[in-house]
Amino acid sequence: MALIVQKYGGTSVANCRRIKRVAERVISRTEQGDDVVVVLSAMAGQTNYLTDLALEMQSNPDKRELDVLLSTGEQVTIALFSMAVKAMGHEARSFLGYQVPVETDAAHSKARIQNIPAEKLKNALNNGIIPVVAGFQGVTDSGDITTLGRGGSDTTAVAVAVAIGADVCEIYTDVDGVFTTDPGICPTAKKIDRISYEEMLEMASLGAKVLEIRSVEFAMRYDMPIHVRSSFTNTPGTMVVKEDELMEDVLVSSVTYSRDEARITISKVPDRPGIASAIFKPISDANIIVDMIIQNARAGDLTDMTFTVSRADFDQAMSILEETASQIGAESVAGDKKIAKVSIVGVGMRNHAGVASSMFDILARHGINILMISTSEIKVSCIIDEKFTELAVRALHEGFGLDKE
Amino acid sequence: MALIVQKYGGTSVANCRRIKRVAERVISRTEQGDDVVVVLSAMAGQTNYLTDLALEMQSNPDKRELDVLLSTGEQVTIALFSMAVKAMGHEARSFLGYQVPVETDAAHSKARIQNIPAEKLKNALNNGIIPVVAGFQGVTDSGDITTLGRGGSDTTAVAVAVAIGADVCEIYTDVDGVFTTDPGICPTAKKIDRISYEEMLEMASLGAKVLEIRSVEFAMRYDMPIHVRSSFTNTPGTMVVKEDELMEDVLVSSVTYSRDEARITISKVPDRPGIASAIFKPISDANIIVDMIIQNARAGDLTDMTFTVSRADFDQAMSILEETASQIGAESVAGDKKIAKVSIVGVGMRNHAGVASSMFDILARHGINILMISTSEIKVSCIIDEKFTELAVRALHEGFGLDKE
Repeated sequence: MALIVQKYGGTSVANCRRIKRVAERVISRTEQGDDVVVVLSAMAGQTNYLTDLALEMQSNPDKRELDVLLSTGEQVTIALFSMAVKAMGHEARSFLGYQVPVETDAAHSKARIQNIPAEKLKNALNNGIIPVVAGFQGVTDSGDITTLGRGGSDTTAVAVAVAIGADVCEIYTDVDGVFTTDPGICPTAKKIDRISYEEMLEMASLGAKVLEIRSVEFAMRYDMPIHVRSSFTNTPGTMVVKEDELMEDVLVSSVTYSRDEARITISKVPDRPGIASAIFKPISDANIIVDMIIQNARAGDLTDMTFTVSRADFDQAMSILEETASQIGAESVAGDKKIAKVSIVGVGMRNHAGVASSMFDILARHGINILMISTSEIKVSCIIDEKFTELAVRALHEGFGLDKE
Repeated sequence: MALIVQKYGGTSVANCRRIKRVAERVISRTEQGDDVVVVLSAMAGQTNYLTDLALEMQSNPDKRELDVLLSTGEQVTIALFSMAVKAMGHEARSFLGYQVPVETDAAHSKARIQNIPAEKLKNALNNGIIPVVAGFQGVTDSGDITTLGRGGSDTTAVAVAVAIGADVCEIYTDVDGVFTTDPGICPTAKKIDRISYEEMLEMASLGAKVLEIRSVEFAMRYDMPIHVRSSFTNTPGTMVVKEDELMEDVLVSSVTYSRDEARITISKVPDRPGIASAIFKPISDANIIVDMIIQNARAGDLTDMTFTVSRADFDQAMSILEETASQIGAESVAGDKKIAKVSIVGVGMRNHAGVASSMFDILARHGINILMISTSEIKVSCIIDEKFTELAVRALHEGFGLDKE
């Protein structure tokens, strides 16, 4: 008998028929003898619909009131789901954020979970009742509703799993698990059976959209295994777990890519102390996140600075930079939106030299020029011309043997 | 400077445009120096939509979960309304049932308000913030969401008004106030400027649908004046207040009618002690409400029993009665759905004899036969053939001089 948290996303509860199907899944699991706590998202599309209503009222909706509004989405699904379970002759009970309670800080729209008392959920389980928890929402000390940001239901699920001491947190989605790369680009992509928290974190931040980053951080901190799997099949998915020795045998576990990249270069900057700060402070003041940065020295105390931002921030960053360039006496500012980032991820890299140079070699053999490079302990990312994205992903996937069993 | 509760119904907040218009109204009132607490219903149609979803999940939806589901309707409007106020440069803050808190018993779907601490609402007012309270919903001791039943937002508004010691509770609706009769039937119907709680109560239970009965009971108990008025105009509406001497000069203040009536007669019942119970217990066991009852003695220890039920319950009541008739040895059961109830209401009746006989006389002069009669201290109701409904309403309205200024 296991204690399990199951989280179902918006597509799994998109309408009454699907909610009933999820109820059947949960009941069949409890009938096998497992204790299940359910965490639900809002029906697919509902959060966008409510956000549009809010934007009709206020161009920049008040964050406290937006949380009151958006949290109704999960409130609807947990009530309907509990009814479905009861209609099938079993017991269920819905829990809103304030009822569990899911205690958070007061940062509306991106609140962080601080504590989840497990008592009420455990009481329900002990009485044969399936607890059905609203994902994405929490409550502050003073009783205000908060939300955890997009994808926050994953975080709720992992935090609830930690709170009740679950054996595993199952995240149900519309794909079969985590893949070695995007199957839409690379048909030989394979489902990964086991992957470490660290690799999953890198993949999430590099563009793979399976799990919300904070939920993985949470799971890693408390060593809570996550099982990513499909709500439409019974196939086992991907276990996201603590790194083990077996994993280290694999040099590269996945290839990711992101087209949401743009590059900006400011040329012939007078190189003096504090110059980097003069360039980047106005950009961070505008809440623009800079990813990679490269500095190339030139002759005569001049330097070039190149960095990447997300495409949505490109135009604003360019105009800020042009202002800065004239202030600090740089020669010119140039931008390029037609770039992409391809990355390889794998904990095996820690103990093996030469993985990065293999990557460069594979790209070179396919005639792909590398514009920028950044590395961490377990990943290597290269910025390339956008038009080579698919080619690079397929070449790396094959080059590192990920297409083989 | 007055302290006012304003309640806006579903048609007044049916879409974003109307919510903004209500926000403008509220702000203009605060700019005149009044303190306003707003109570809102769900958008028109939303409660029915959610109820339909619930019925898809469970044929008889679990009442606790249904309350969780339905309460999202008001949660949406209070959040959107608060955003609208803020977009106009004023301060507002939404309050859910559990946040005020509106403390109720645990009778889900028809909970009764037990207490409303005024502290948080008053704090908001003292800080120049317009409190926006979700109507229709409350919270139990154990933190469960309850709802107050259809029309419950009126009750929330009056209870909040009592809790904060408001000068008046304004109920905004899509009509100009309370009328001497239905203007749709009788074009000479006049808006009533002032009416007593007792009269309003009788009118509500006799078929006039302006105010929810429990809100009037609440207002009467705590002597809270209700101002029923239109959210689409600035015309003063109808004040519902404590009875005063002026009101007693008016014998009849309104004429109401209801077509939701059906009559059943069980004939030649052996008249022995306990026979009424034998007839009516099976009916009340089926949750059917009986309105008027008449018993006519016949010769030879036989009696006829006639009573009225709502039309929706007619078929079920008939089949129950036929069963009963054979058990107790009654001769026959006959039913009639083509009847209506017309009533006159007025506190002046208390001190004036002859009002009932005037009514009978007016109906007789128009050739309308009276099938059943029931009276209370301040109303007289007659059951008549349904086809005479409009004629009777117009004749009584004119006969008691309600068409005159």
